[in-house]
Amino acid sequence: MALKNLTFDKIDITGGFWHEKQELIRKTTIWNVYKRFCDTGRFPAFKMDWKEGMPNRPNIFWDSDVAKWLESVAYLTLKQREPELEAIVDEVVDDIERGRMEDGYFNICYELFEPQNRFKFRGNHELYCAGHLIEAAVAYNKATGKNKFLHLMEDYAKLIKRIFMDEESAAFDSPGHEEIELALVRLYDHTGNRDYLDLALFFINKRGSQAKLPENDNYHRGTHIQDHLPVREQFTAEGHAVRACYLYCAMADLAERTDDAELKNACEKLFKNITEARMYITGSIGSSHVLEEFENDYRLPNDTAYAETCAALALALFARRMQAFGPDSRYADTVERIIYNGFLSGLSLDGKSFFYENAHEIDLEQRKSVRSSLHERRNTHFPITQRIEVFGCSCCPPNVTRFIPSIADFIYSYDDTTVYVNQYMASTASLGELTLTQETNYPFEGCIKLTISGGSRRIAFRIPAWCRVWSIGRNGASVDTAINNGYAYVDAADGDVLTLSLRISVRRVKSNPRVLTNRGLIAVTYGPFVMCLEGVDNGGSLTNVKLVGKTATVGFDEKLGLPCIYHPAVRESIKGLYSDIVSSEPFTAKLIPYHAFANRGETDMRIWVENI
Amino acid sequence: MALKNLTFDKIDITGGFWHEKQELIRKTTIWNVYKRFCDTGRFPAFKMDWKEGMPNRPNIFWDSDVAKWLESVAYLTLKQREPELEAIVDEVVDDIERGRMEDGYFNICYELFEPQNRFKFRGNHELYCAGHLIEAAVAYNKATGKNKFLHLMEDYAKLIKRIFMDEESAAFDSPGHEEIELALVRLYDHTGNRDYLDLALFFINKRGSQAKLPENDNYHRGTHIQDHLPVREQFTAEGHAVRACYLYCAMADLAERTDDAELKNACEKLFKNITEARMYITGSIGSSHVLEEFENDYRLPNDTAYAETCAALALALFARRMQAFGPDSRYADTVERIIYNGFLSGLSLDGKSFFYENAHEIDLEQRKSVRSSLHERRNTHFPITQRIEVFGCSCCPPNVTRFIPSIADFIYSYDDTTVYVNQYMASTASLGELTLTQETNYPFEGCIKLTISGGSRRIAFRIPAWCRVWSIGRNGASVDTAINNGYAYVDAADGDVLTLSLRISVRRVKSNPRVLTNRGLIAVTYGPFVMCLEGVDNGGSLTNVKLVGKTATVGFDEKLGLPCIYHPAVRESIKGLYSDIVSSEPFTAKLIPYHAFANRGETDMRIWVENI
Repeated sequence: MALKNLTFDKIDITGGFWHEKQELIRKTTIWNVYKRFCDTGRFPAFKMDWKEGMPNRPNIFWDSDVAKWLESVAYLTLKQREPELEAIVDEVVDDIERGRMEDGYFNICYELFEPQNRFKFRGNHELYCAGHLIEAAVAYNKATGKNKFLHLMEDYAKLIKRIFMDEESAAFDSPGHEEIELALVRLYDHTGNRDYLDLALFFINKRGSQAKLPENDNYHRGTHIQDHLPVREQFTAEGHAVRACYLYCAMADLAERTDDAELKNACEKLFKNITEARMYITGSIGSSHVLEEFENDYRLPNDTAYAETCAALALALFARRMQAFGPDSRYADTVERIIYNGFLSGLSLDGKSFFYENAHEIDLEQRKSVRSSLHERRNTHFPITQRIEVFGCSCCPPNVTRFIPSIADFIYSYDDTTVYVNQYMASTASLGELTLTQETNYPFEGCIKLTISGGSRRIAFRIPAWCRVWSIGRNGASVDTAINNGYAYVDAADGDVLTLSLRISVRRVKSNPRVLTNRGLIAVTYGPFVMCLEGVDNGGSLTNVKLVGKTATVGFDEKLGLPCIYHPAVRESIKGLYSDIVSSEPFTAKLIPYHAFANRGETDMRIWVENI
Repeated sequence: MALKNLTFDKIDITGGFWHEKQELIRKTTIWNVYKRFCDTGRFPAFKMDWKEGMPNRPNIFWDSDVAKWLESVAYLTLKQREPELEAIVDEVVDDIERGRMEDGYFNICYELFEPQNRFKFRGNHELYCAGHLIEAAVAYNKATGKNKFLHLMEDYAKLIKRIFMDEESAAFDSPGHEEIELALVRLYDHTGNRDYLDLALFFINKRGSQAKLPENDNYHRGTHIQDHLPVREQFTAEGHAVRACYLYCAMADLAERTDDAELKNACEKLFKNITEARMYITGSIGSSHVLEEFENDYRLPNDTAYAETCAALALALFARRMQAFGPDSRYADTVERIIYNGFLSGLSLDGKSFFYENAHEIDLEQRKSVRSSLHERRNTHFPITQRIEVFGCSCCPPNVTRFIPSIADFIYSYDDTTVYVNQYMASTASLGELTLTQETNYPFEGCIKLTISGGSRRIAFRIPAWCRVWSIGRNGASVDTAINNGYAYVDAADGDVLTLSLRISVRRVKSNPRVLTNRGLIAVTYGPFVMCLEGVDNGGSLTNVKLVGKTATVGFDEKLGLPCIYHPAVRESIKGLYSDIVSSEPFTAKLIPYHAFANRGETDMRIWVENI
């Protein structure tokens, strides 16, 4: 029972939480990233006139950084033309046209430094950059109707197909950093040219075969790049978390488009493995800084969490594709977990700065005490405590700017009879003859009013896994319904107004006891928000803070514009390293949504805490 | 206010817990280690006739393995002659006499493989082996009065002094693995030859200066071998835990013998750093398998604990030396913590097999689920779950066999007016004209009867940090006294019988909240024993076990011959990775002393557990 996801071009976010975030991207973030990408030489690099000795030597992944920014502009433009931003895109497209090689190849570093070596080194992000440019080109064509970028990228895609698939003359046969696979599916969806789908399939099918690499080339094979097994036999999420989820996105895309049960089975197992053993409560993934990888099952350290913003985002993209396999609220629950927590923490509240790694605990004293010893360098890596505007490897900022404008992608899925409401956002959507209007102040309030016009349809509301008490009404009258696969179904005729009431309450969540770092601790959640303590609200150090009892008061932090929770607590001290002599001092702790941490200066932060 | 430690040659352990262990060493362990050291080529290697192509190629640390065994025999012999064991020692001594070089040099590997390279490579355990041979020679001379071994080692020590100190012709100027420093102090104490003390001081003072090494030789300098700073400026315990504590032993020895306040200050800071931030509750240290090192403050993972038996033992040796600086029960408390827990776990109850690494938590299911992935190899290392008879690097077994026969070293310290009773063991001790007789079934019972004869003295009983309720009697009458620095003082005349009653009870110990792995968890202790849960007593998996309430029943496990604790508990399960839906099933948990874990087959084990 396959579903389709309604794409965001059919949906306008009309107000509330995500509207504000979208406005922030449009007014502040997109420009701030542009400025930093100019300062650091990324946009200038497209002029292809960099010479040795000049500052800002181009890096192998710069094409992709800018490509995601171009894609972001396309998404903003789709909703509201932005002539100034469009002019920048057009200039970059002209740069690409001028700069590309005669046969359609485009890559800044290879063309500048070693054109003779193109398609020779699996590890050099060449096809990754191509993939992001293709995604941008598709998006820009869709948004503006302009063809040039798309044609340039079609030429490039055709070249790639010839070299890799037809002539098999490249030195490797699947990329070291996945991305082009899902981009080629998008290009296929957009153009209808089956070649692109075939090429995506080719890359997917070659992965894990390692046929072309020298036997001793261990760097460019193995779990890090999901090359340890044929993809249909990969059941645990291994290696670099972003690469992994980009791959899984393409696998899910192809499973659906080619009706490949084995591929679908692998996707389901991978999703289950991630969400049941390798994901933070925030939806973040990739717990290790060592090569930005997934760690073994249940190894989810808080203080050294890597939890890259791009990885959380990539998991949301994967979950959205899984949603198409059939109604199962686990997918949308995971998306919700990510977008309100481990993804959103990547962006500052003022829209100007970013986390690449997302700390899941900060203990400033502990960090001070960690000497820059052998062990610090080898085994203990703490993420930064304050967001910054640009990184040396700055993949996350333009990923945030393309994700938020397209967030409505996650709201609806549907089949012939039913519309699945996966996310709650104030919005108007067009689905064929149908118009779906959501009025809600979610996630601040749990009431969603959905008006259906233009036809009748069965509506399936996702009942979030965190929600215990809910009710549904139709035109003011209560409706009896049951949950199936996490959705509550109700029939709606043209003009009907449905109301879903989700009771949002303070919850004390435990984790599987195999997650050693969280044993004996709880996390407080409020609706979809995972809450955290910050030192700035709680007297500095959080090391010895414990929550007391089971009663809490919900408040609202006007400055953050977010709900907060007041909870009885103590500071508990013990004598020495081990003791049963405990002294404690009561106080009222304040918790705020995790994603908003580190917006008020450098301070301690904790999600998991004792509750005595 | 310096004290002296009464050495074990003046004390006989007459019964009880440690007497049984000493008999086990004498009857079983010493022979079992001998057998394994023959099988693996260690004893035969002293014949110096190994040739390429033969099995059991000698290793650079074999001299030290056998040396510690020789020292063990000396300790056993001191209490009761063992002709068969002595004959083996004499043969090895003859081998050394025959095998040494003309100038007194002795080292199996260097002589066999590369005599031209002696004293050229800091990392090759050359002086470490020399140190253990010197310790053995001193012990054997003391035990038997035989001179040959001592003379051979004095020749060797003189050669080392000439090469390193007088001629400065060695390629390095302090060893890569400490040990010789403390051995030279023993040689000085035994012979009165000040040269040995000077050489020990020389090595200590050169450490951290790195004068002789090429600048780019990073392998042979730095924190791993405590060479990052001059020793008087080392305030945190860094690097390889055994090396570190052997060094600290020598530093304390030299601080005392040369009245060096700076050195003493460093020792105090190092001891504090270890015991307040880098030590397991069992007294084990060196939490990382990566180079067997101390990790940063409070990083004490349970499941991947390295916790080498030799390291715990070395910390006890260091604590004993610190004890001499003046009365402070922290030192003897630490010794007690080690000898009943993290050291003793190194030996099986049958006396035949050993842990090198001492697991501090075993979850067999978790281990199964950990794939042999990149991350497993790089970051996740689990210690073995069952003791074995010999290791490739088999330093721990002969360290156990020399430690237990000399355990009475830890009982008493004294000055002109006072005898400090640091450890409670049934024993008879001679201190000058004084005889001190302890009658006790400690640690099974908390009652100690101490009879003083031959003179009068002030007696200072250590009140263990774990003990809350205690009383002292003299000749049947209660004595009022107060604790000072952890000791309770009472005057005793010739013939007086003092009784110390320590109430042994079940305690629930917390750790400093900076120890992330233990947050929200408790450890149960009973007297000096840290208790643990084993799967074999508790229905297999311990992952989801939580103790309930504050009442427990003390029992006795006849098979283990040890106290055990029965505690109300539940198995608590949650749905998925994160949830507030909890189901629980009550049962009665059984805890046994940690040191006795893994004596009944491979099974789960946990020390730290939730108490709800």
